[in-house]
Amino acid sequence: AKIAEEIALHLAPGATITDVGSVKRAVIDAVGPHLPEGVHFAPAHPLAGTEHSGPRSGFAELFENRWTILVPGAADRAAVDRLATLWRGIGANVDEMEPDHHDLVLAVTSHCPHLIAYTMVGVADDLRRVTDSEVIKYSAAGFRDFTRIAASDPTMWRDVFLTNKDATLEILGRFTEELFALQRAIRTGDGELLFDYFTRTRAIRRGIIQ
Amino acid sequence: AKIAEEIALHLAPGATITDVGSVKRAVIDAVGPHLPEGVHFAPAHPLAGTEHSGPRSGFAELFENRWTILVPGAADRAAVDRLATLWRGIGANVDEMEPDHHDLVLAVTSHCPHLIAYTMVGVADDLRRVTDSEVIKYSAAGFRDFTRIAASDPTMWRDVFLTNKDATLEILGRFTEELFALQRAIRTGDGELLFDYFTRTRAIRRGIIQ
Repeated sequence: AKIAEEIALHLAPGATITDVGSVKRAVIDAVGPHLPEGVHFAPAHPLAGTEHSGPRSGFAELFENRWTILVPGAADRAAVDRLATLWRGIGANVDEMEPDHHDLVLAVTSHCPHLIAYTMVGVADDLRRVTDSEVIKYSAAGFRDFTRIAASDPTMWRDVFLTNKDATLEILGRFTEELFALQRAIRTGDGELLFDYFTRTRAIRRGIIQ
Repeated sequence: AKIAEEIALHLAPGATITDVGSVKRAVIDAVGPHLPEGVHFAPAHPLAGTEHSGPRSGFAELFENRWTILVPGAADRAAVDRLATLWRGIGANVDEMEPDHHDLVLAVTSHCPHLIAYTMVGVADDLRRVTDSEVIKYSAAGFRDFTRIAASDPTMWRDVFLTNKDATLEILGRFTEELFALQRAIRTGDGELLFDYFTRTRAIRRGIIQ
C-alpha cells in the first residue's frame, strides 16, 4: 500500500500497473484504492519458477508453456490485451480469473500442498528414532516428492499464507477432516473405506499424468 | 499365515524363505511361527517400483541403484548372505534393519507421505467450486508431485495401512499436531513461526537434493 501511494503520484494517465504475486485479493485491496483514475490495474500471477529464488534463478525459457493467470477485474480491455500479449511473447499461456477464485484454486493446487509438504518434512526431521540420513537414504519411496516442493523460499511462503489466509484455512480444514476419517479407518481396520478412497481419485490423477 | 502353513509341509531343511512386502513386523508374526526348524526366514523389502503394478510393470533395470532392506532377525548368517548376493546381483544396494525400526522408517519416508498425498488429491477432487480441469491445468504449482505418489495400487496401499497400523498412526498423530500449529499461525498471522518452520528443515532437504 505504501509503495502504491508513492508511485501513484508519478503515474501517467493510461499507464498499466501489474504484479506477479501468488495471491491476488490481497494485492487488489492494498494497491487498488491508491491508484489514480485513468490508470489500468491488471494483476497477474505467472505459475513458473523453481525451488530457487532471486534474479539469478531466472532463465530465458522460464515461462515457456507455463500458465500466467490474469486477474483484471474491471480494467480496460485494451490494457489487459497488451499485458496478455507481453506474457504470450515470453512463451506463457494466459488465462483470466476472478481474484477470489484465483486464490481458492491456488490454495488447492499450490499453497496447501506446500504447507503439507513442509509439515511432513518437519515431522521427519523431528523424529529422534529415525535419523536424517535414513530419511535421505530411503526418500525415493515417496518422501522425495515432498522435499522438492518444500525447498522453496521461506519468505515468499510466509507471505503467501499471511495474505491467503481464508482460502488456505478452508482447504486445510477440509484436508484434516478427511485425514481424520482415514486415520480412524486405519485404527478400526476398515479396509473397504481405505480401498475406496485410494480408488476414487483416479480420474484426477490420470488427467494430470497424461 | 494360511499359505505359510501349507508350504511349511514341503520345505526342505536349510531352505531360505523371504518376501518382498512393504511391512515387516506383520509378515514375521504371520509366517514365522509356521515355518519348521532348520528353515531360514529372512524377510526383505525392495524399495523400487513405479505407480504401475503387476508382472507386466517390471523391467530389467527396476532394482538398479535402489535399496533393498533385509530384516533377517535371527536367521542363519550364510542364508542372509546368499539373499544379499541375490539382491546385489540384480543391481540393488542392501541394508539390514530390525523389523519395528523398518516399519517406522517406512511410515515416515513412504506410508504417511502416500496417505497424505491421497488425502490432498481427494480434497481437490471433492471441491465443488474448483473444477478437476482447473486442478489439472495448474497442478505444476505443487499439486502434481502429490498426484504422482497418489497413483499407486489401491489394494497394496490398503494392506500397508492395515498391517503397519501402529507406526503410521504414530506419525500421522505427530503430523496433524504440527499441521494444527501451522494452521493456528496462519489464523493469528504469526509470520515468525511460519518463517522459522519453513527455514528449519533445510538440512534434510539439501541432503536429499544432492
